[in-house]
Amino acid sequence: MGVSLAEILIERSEELRREEGLNIRIVGIVDSSGAAVNDKGLDLEEMIRTKKKLGSVSCHNEYGRHGLNVLDLLDELDVDVLVDATPTNLKDGEPSFTYIKKALTYRIHVVTVNKGPLALALPALRELAKHKDVVFRFSGSVGGGLPVIEFARQCARGDKIVKVEGVLNGTTNYIISRMEDGLDFKTALTEAQEKGYAERDPSLDIMGFDTAAKLVILANEVVGRKVTINDISIKGIEDLEKEDIDEASRSGETYRLIGRVDGELEVKPTRIKREDPLAVRYSMNAVSFTTLNSGRHVILGRGAGGRETATAILRDLIEIKKKLVEVRI
Amino acid sequence: MGVSLAEILIERSEELRREEGLNIRIVGIVDSSGAAVNDKGLDLEEMIRTKKKLGSVSCHNEYGRHGLNVLDLLDELDVDVLVDATPTNLKDGEPSFTYIKKALTYRIHVVTVNKGPLALALPALRELAKHKDVVFRFSGSVGGGLPVIEFARQCARGDKIVKVEGVLNGTTNYIISRMEDGLDFKTALTEAQEKGYAERDPSLDIMGFDTAAKLVILANEVVGRKVTINDISIKGIEDLEKEDIDEASRSGETYRLIGRVDGELEVKPTRIKREDPLAVRYSMNAVSFTTLNSGRHVILGRGAGGRETATAILRDLIEIKKKLVEVRI
Repeated sequence: MGVSLAEILIERSEELRREEGLNIRIVGIVDSSGAAVNDKGLDLEEMIRTKKKLGSVSCHNEYGRHGLNVLDLLDELDVDVLVDATPTNLKDGEPSFTYIKKALTYRIHVVTVNKGPLALALPALRELAKHKDVVFRFSGSVGGGLPVIEFARQCARGDKIVKVEGVLNGTTNYIISRMEDGLDFKTALTEAQEKGYAERDPSLDIMGFDTAAKLVILANEVVGRKVTINDISIKGIEDLEKEDIDEASRSGETYRLIGRVDGELEVKPTRIKREDPLAVRYSMNAVSFTTLNSGRHVILGRGAGGRETATAILRDLIEIKKKLVEVRI
Repeated sequence: MGVSLAEILIERSEELRREEGLNIRIVGIVDSSGAAVNDKGLDLEEMIRTKKKLGSVSCHNEYGRHGLNVLDLLDELDVDVLVDATPTNLKDGEPSFTYIKKALTYRIHVVTVNKGPLALALPALRELAKHKDVVFRFSGSVGGGLPVIEFARQCARGDKIVKVEGVLNGTTNYIISRMEDGLDFKTALTEAQEKGYAERDPSLDIMGFDTAAKLVILANEVVGRKVTINDISIKGIEDLEKEDIDEASRSGETYRLIGRVDGELEVKPTRIKREDPLAVRYSMNAVSFTTLNSGRHVILGRGAGGRETATAILRDLIEIKKKLVEVRI
């Protein structure tokens, strides 16, 4: 993900400068072994080469710093924005949770794609960001490159969103789709892992926790519910049998793992018509917003992928730049 | 449409004032027989009653003005915004074209849902609005309540839209869907007219001109092509036979009337997979944006309807209010 972001920043730097006035200087990069630091700005092509060749940016001969972590870096450097692309941990959100709290406390804007801290404490983190008057964004945490939250904001303009329903997890959707094609659960799961869809620990996907984490984000951002993952009733696809799917299929229906916010907050395998726009297949995501006055709006797209998520991060960075300019006027 | 807008403004006035700081005063309403005018603000409930009971707001006993038209009203009153909900005329765009030009020239912000002037002269009208430093918006002209243009802007943030494809006309899509169900073209068309989907003159829909008009708007707004309807290659569904649809169906495919902008600008019945997200049925609209870095994003929703379009107008009014506040800072 970090590499994808670096690549996109290199490819589009000219354009971003020209069209958005966005001139990004990367002063520090941290990976699991350490960091590379240069307050005059790191050369991203060199960093990608170092990472690919030596396994860590901390091995760079000039700017590498073994063992340095994000917290050290926040203390040492004068940064405007922290981009957090650490892997999701839904147990306690660490280490991302601590990174984000420290950055916000230091009045540093934060972009994260880590669902852990969001699922566990989004209302509190928003409050902290507001209190410190900094921007806290996480476009890439739901729907990958698909601008789900931004779309919802547009739907809600001059209207009201009364219900959100979504197929938010590509892994489980891939598994269900392959079960529709005739595979059993286990074979479909193995295939999803081989194709690289399933995360290291697929139980987060299968038990519905990844969907629930994304639902927390939508509930907070789209319908203004100050909730965490503990408020959600969660049932995954672990008990979904091929027979259930075959049976539904005979009446032109199927199952999808759907997260839903209306009066309730629920994740569960849900029987829907094959024609329902949420009946997307394979690794697609779909989110439906039911509005008071203009019916149901649905968006579809690939929910994951390095370049997709990197694009979402860039969208957030542009948003931060825009806010900064507004404040300066 | 005017009545739908008035109803929504009444229902949501409290909320709009509180949440958006939007305090709308309607000083003039024009219909085909004349106008109602009150520079202290018209009572919308009374206006709806008059319209429903007497057929025209110009019959109102106190504020009615027979024969007064939009041009008179722009001369007589001090208005901030003109909302144009006149029916689409793709021949010369009148009378809407003249109304919009006059309003923009007078430095009055304009919201329109009329595709005529947009299809014929969008680049010139945008130029005029820019020159006069006023806001010119037309959310409701594509996709009804579905925020198509706004969504595209979000997709393009930090990314690039390289292709737009859409099922943009509900009438023809209803007809094709009913042909899939087994009806012939003529029966399907009659049914669409009875259901109120087809416009007064259905040829605009069927020959592809309505789709082309919407494609002009998307081409200008989403991919920055300064084009008019004359630049588009247009073929409607008039020659589409039930046999074509049956034949496609045997290979799991179907037809949709698709407007497309990439290198080319084209409207034509296009053979696509039944699984393609653009294969929406009945009066649904669907628009797909293919991006450079984050794949294909698709939005689906009902493309028309009074309340839907009124919601889009309200969205534009909120946008204008926002711009006004920004300028004042």
